[in-house]
Amino acid sequence: MCAANKQSSNYKPLTESDAITLAKRLNLFENDSQLTCYEIGDGNLNLVFKVTNTENGESIIIKQALPYAKVVGESWPLTLDRSRIETNALIKQAEFVPQYVPKVYYSDESLAITIMEDLSHLQIARAALMNDEDLPLLSNHIGEFLAKTLFYTSDYGLNQHYKKELVKQFINPDLCKITEDLVFTDPFFDHETNDFEQELQKDVERIWNDQVLKLEVAKLKQIFLTKAEALVHGDLHTGSIFADEKETKVIDPEFAYFGPIGFDVGQVFANLLLNAISREPKKQNILFTHIETTWTVFVEEFTKAWKNDAIEVFSQVDGYLEYVLSEIFEEAVGFAGCEIIRRTIGLAHVADLDKIEPANKRISIKQLALKLGSELVKNRKSVTNPKDFKEYTIQTALSSL
Amino acid sequence: MCAANKQSSNYKPLTESDAITLAKRLNLFENDSQLTCYEIGDGNLNLVFKVTNTENGESIIIKQALPYAKVVGESWPLTLDRSRIETNALIKQAEFVPQYVPKVYYSDESLAITIMEDLSHLQIARAALMNDEDLPLLSNHIGEFLAKTLFYTSDYGLNQHYKKELVKQFINPDLCKITEDLVFTDPFFDHETNDFEQELQKDVERIWNDQVLKLEVAKLKQIFLTKAEALVHGDLHTGSIFADEKETKVIDPEFAYFGPIGFDVGQVFANLLLNAISREPKKQNILFTHIETTWTVFVEEFTKAWKNDAIEVFSQVDGYLEYVLSEIFEEAVGFAGCEIIRRTIGLAHVADLDKIEPANKRISIKQLALKLGSELVKNRKSVTNPKDFKEYTIQTALSSL
Repeated sequence: MCAANKQSSNYKPLTESDAITLAKRLNLFENDSQLTCYEIGDGNLNLVFKVTNTENGESIIIKQALPYAKVVGESWPLTLDRSRIETNALIKQAEFVPQYVPKVYYSDESLAITIMEDLSHLQIARAALMNDEDLPLLSNHIGEFLAKTLFYTSDYGLNQHYKKELVKQFINPDLCKITEDLVFTDPFFDHETNDFEQELQKDVERIWNDQVLKLEVAKLKQIFLTKAEALVHGDLHTGSIFADEKETKVIDPEFAYFGPIGFDVGQVFANLLLNAISREPKKQNILFTHIETTWTVFVEEFTKAWKNDAIEVFSQVDGYLEYVLSEIFEEAVGFAGCEIIRRTIGLAHVADLDKIEPANKRISIKQLALKLGSELVKNRKSVTNPKDFKEYTIQTALSSL
Repeated sequence: MCAANKQSSNYKPLTESDAITLAKRLNLFENDSQLTCYEIGDGNLNLVFKVTNTENGESIIIKQALPYAKVVGESWPLTLDRSRIETNALIKQAEFVPQYVPKVYYSDESLAITIMEDLSHLQIARAALMNDEDLPLLSNHIGEFLAKTLFYTSDYGLNQHYKKELVKQFINPDLCKITEDLVFTDPFFDHETNDFEQELQKDVERIWNDQVLKLEVAKLKQIFLTKAEALVHGDLHTGSIFADEKETKVIDPEFAYFGPIGFDVGQVFANLLLNAISREPKKQNILFTHIETTWTVFVEEFTKAWKNDAIEVFSQVDGYLEYVLSEIFEEAVGFAGCEIIRRTIGLAHVADLDKIEPANKRISIKQLALKLGSELVKNRKSVTNPKDFKEYTIQTALSSL
């Protein structure tokens, strides 16, 4: 699928004891601390070592990229350069929202290592939401994270000369290719990476044969391929967010590149929607509220940044901010539709849907997801308000009865 | 205005005798040839040496970038990296249309030198058109040049992974900044780089106060800043084209970067229009025909390439090609409008307008240019056919009476 760069001659996967040695060498703990280390990753893409001082419980994470991705039993080569991208993205984001990203303590490109703050006191937001926890500040924080990281890395808020140097640093062909294939292409064709229950065959064929839908997906893919608007996270689903009632941290920006602002916003919308439809109707409201709040806070913070810090002289022109925001929203709605479809029938699913029991309920909710995703892609120009998501979801569900 | 990169320690401007020595060292002529050399550039941006074998008249051009730009008496530092960009762009374009670009014989990044085919048997197209020469194949050739260089460097026709590596190679902040300022910004504000006759003051103020126009220019500038669609030439006016009745060569791609396809197309439209309005009405038709032919041939060649060589799987989807072409045309119309305005009141004028005599005629044609440019920017969605340019020009002229 994607060619790995030639490995640096230095590179070797760490063992748990290597990780302890490294932490000691870097003086990341007090002298003579007793350290333990466990590899806690899922082993598919990265090694994740948690190194703990047994005396006071202080801990750090050492994340090391592996030169392959294991997906459904297969092993694809995957560039180690993603470790450089992740480190640099975390550092760049911390300039604007240090409160929402893990601290980076150290990185080593040749070993593809990032050493960072341990966030294991928090939960993955997807798991928390599936567990009916409210995460009351999640959407406030994510709205601000999106507004600040995206505004201040765009031509609106960043020296346009320096932005181009950043575009160059964040050229990320291998990981972009994964998104181009898995989000924007394979689910819309009869491709071997797709993965869905046999009961969905007819619904999936309807997507493959929907020329209007495919034309709109083609346009959205073109935007993803060409629109170098801001340094997007690139994989901002609820599995990339750690949270509790008070704190929110966005992790894993290895897909970061200069792309459309609406892509990050749309992935957030989509993953909140996917959780919403997985629930009983009476428990859905909190998710629709999270969607509304994400957008409202995004608009507030983006507007504040625009008014205070815009570098683009046209920012003062009547209507320009409103135009930019409406374009971001329209694209976000379309990207959300693609994400919902691919999370239902593509290679990488979400537990929100896959864990639904019994099976017939799961199938009918996945059918709803496919319809909702298609409607959002096709009607993205008429969805103009985040409240519309709730309306659309209810209407789509009703029309399926 | 733009910071020059640190000069390579090797760099020094050549003299005419250095140029001869270099040509000999590289064996660019037969042994023992008698060579003469003249510096024939205008000295504002580059040294241009023509080295000739006095025995058989064979000649080459040695072009060397200077570390500054002299404009209206001022000297701005300007990166030598533009020489690398120019060489690489010429070589890349020659992969698709060797017949329309000068051959590159040699380049040296540290000296900022490109050695290439001498085209002095041809005329600069602007001068030829001002001299009432028809250049009957100009628009056929330019239409094909645009279609092939732009299609085959876009995500439609180029491996999407490799395209991203090219985007990185052609990051060109200094020269893009010149366009961002001189085409998309300064003419729309009361900026010191602007240059226009006092008689135009009211017309220019109308532009500065036209909020609708400025909002549309802001959108076009955003597209120029962010849309990495294809390797555009970036400065494709009629002064960058050598031609005669049979041959056409596009030169000087030092502004090349990955930008919107419509930018190159729009600059061609604009410079043909500027020549058209500089003429008596009865002599304008040939220019409107050139505009139509440019677009018709562009569409034919782009469509042929799309059908035969598209790498994007969505290229087969009904309506996608038509959508892409209509988006290119719409953007080209808008970019043409910006170009017409900036060539009338901005820093860099065109001789087509400036040479008009007597002065009152020149002023009234410049007034027409400003109106036409504004209309094209504001109404670019309703200009859908290249024939509309003629209609628009006539209507705008009539409404000015």
